[in-house]
Amino acid sequence: MPSFCVVLVEPKYSGNIGSVARCMKNFGVKDLIMVNPCEIDDTAYMMAMHARDILENSRIFPDLESALNEIDLAVATTSVIEEHRKACLRKAYTLKEFVEDVRDFGGRVGLIFGREDYGLYNHEIKECDILLTIPTSKEYPSLNLSHAVGIVLYELFSSKFDRRVRDRNIGTVEKRKMMETLRDILDHLEYPDHKRGKAEITLRRVIGRAKLTELEYHLLMGILGMIKERIR
Amino acid sequence: MPSFCVVLVEPKYSGNIGSVARCMKNFGVKDLIMVNPCEIDDTAYMMAMHARDILENSRIFPDLESALNEIDLAVATTSVIEEHRKACLRKAYTLKEFVEDVRDFGGRVGLIFGREDYGLYNHEIKECDILLTIPTSKEYPSLNLSHAVGIVLYELFSSKFDRRVRDRNIGTVEKRKMMETLRDILDHLEYPDHKRGKAEITLRRVIGRAKLTELEYHLLMGILGMIKERIR
Repeated sequence: MPSFCVVLVEPKYSGNIGSVARCMKNFGVKDLIMVNPCEIDDTAYMMAMHARDILENSRIFPDLESALNEIDLAVATTSVIEEHRKACLRKAYTLKEFVEDVRDFGGRVGLIFGREDYGLYNHEIKECDILLTIPTSKEYPSLNLSHAVGIVLYELFSSKFDRRVRDRNIGTVEKRKMMETLRDILDHLEYPDHKRGKAEITLRRVIGRAKLTELEYHLLMGILGMIKERIR
Repeated sequence: MPSFCVVLVEPKYSGNIGSVARCMKNFGVKDLIMVNPCEIDDTAYMMAMHARDILENSRIFPDLESALNEIDLAVATTSVIEEHRKACLRKAYTLKEFVEDVRDFGGRVGLIFGREDYGLYNHEIKECDILLTIPTSKEYPSLNLSHAVGIVLYELFSSKFDRRVRDRNIGTVEKRKMMETLRDILDHLEYPDHKRGKAEITLRRVIGRAKLTELEYHLLMGILGMIKERIR
């Protein structure tokens, strides 16, 4: 059964942070992580209403990479998606697809929301396992930050999760190691530079979606290690 | 296929009205109706961002009764519900149940949201066809107004509606007439006073949920008229 935390990357308005905290408490999610946020002033506490504790217990990290160490499945959110068949970096799950898919994840899921104006940068999305979008009107697709958080948490809260105990899934650190190994392999293969970016993102996403258990991870890493040895 | 409008009853904060307008545009709902709102100042336009047109085209009514004349299915929203079997006035649909149920409604659906602090009063809920609640944490059930609107509109937007053409359903005026007839009948029956309130609410809800077509309405009103004649 997954547990959830909210990660805000460089939020610019203190009031939004407070509104996010309130939504979190409304839907029973307690852990707020922020990457390099603005100052958290009185406006935040005013908007948080009865969710003061969530602000007080929030944790701040200097960059996304260190924040990702806290979580096992990194879910980036965006309103900017690509829908064509060959889309890669910004090919996204809809929220409902994601909720269906995350049910059987055993570990800590980070729901990652970008800046009010620019959202998440491409290099940040690339670090994540899954990309998620909330379907909106094409005329005005960009939701307010706290409304996006509220809708995602509502959908997760409303879905009933499977209570069976499952194996723990691998986290960010393991996935990073696996990607390093894969990149080494691509190097050894002299994989063409112009296809490289897309390949790495695809691998990252496949690993993310696969939700590997620790046993599976060790088995795969064993195989990858053998491949690497062989081709270098 | 239903069409939707948002009705805000006595909103107190201009910024909330703007945030509601933004959510509406995000999910392609254009018609905003307000009952006796606060002054709509610059904060509203600031929060609305690219949804200025929704504020400019919004309509204001002096009371809920006159606003209800604009709509065919009145959906009250609340965070205060009763869950026991015999609950009546505040027995509510969850949002997902409602979305499933409203698919086949042919007419104009008003999504009615109450004051930031007190929500909708009992006498207002009594005037509505359906009561709706967004499931939230028991620890802090009360959503911010614009977040509640955003979540309801998201859920409606995400569900695909049946495109078949259907008969028009009856509106507020017809339902009010039917309730008058039913009340007359209760009077003639000398229905016990202490059970009266619950009976009226139950009838109102049944009529609301039944989503009568015009033909069905005329047929039923014919029967009720005959009953009334007979027992007076």
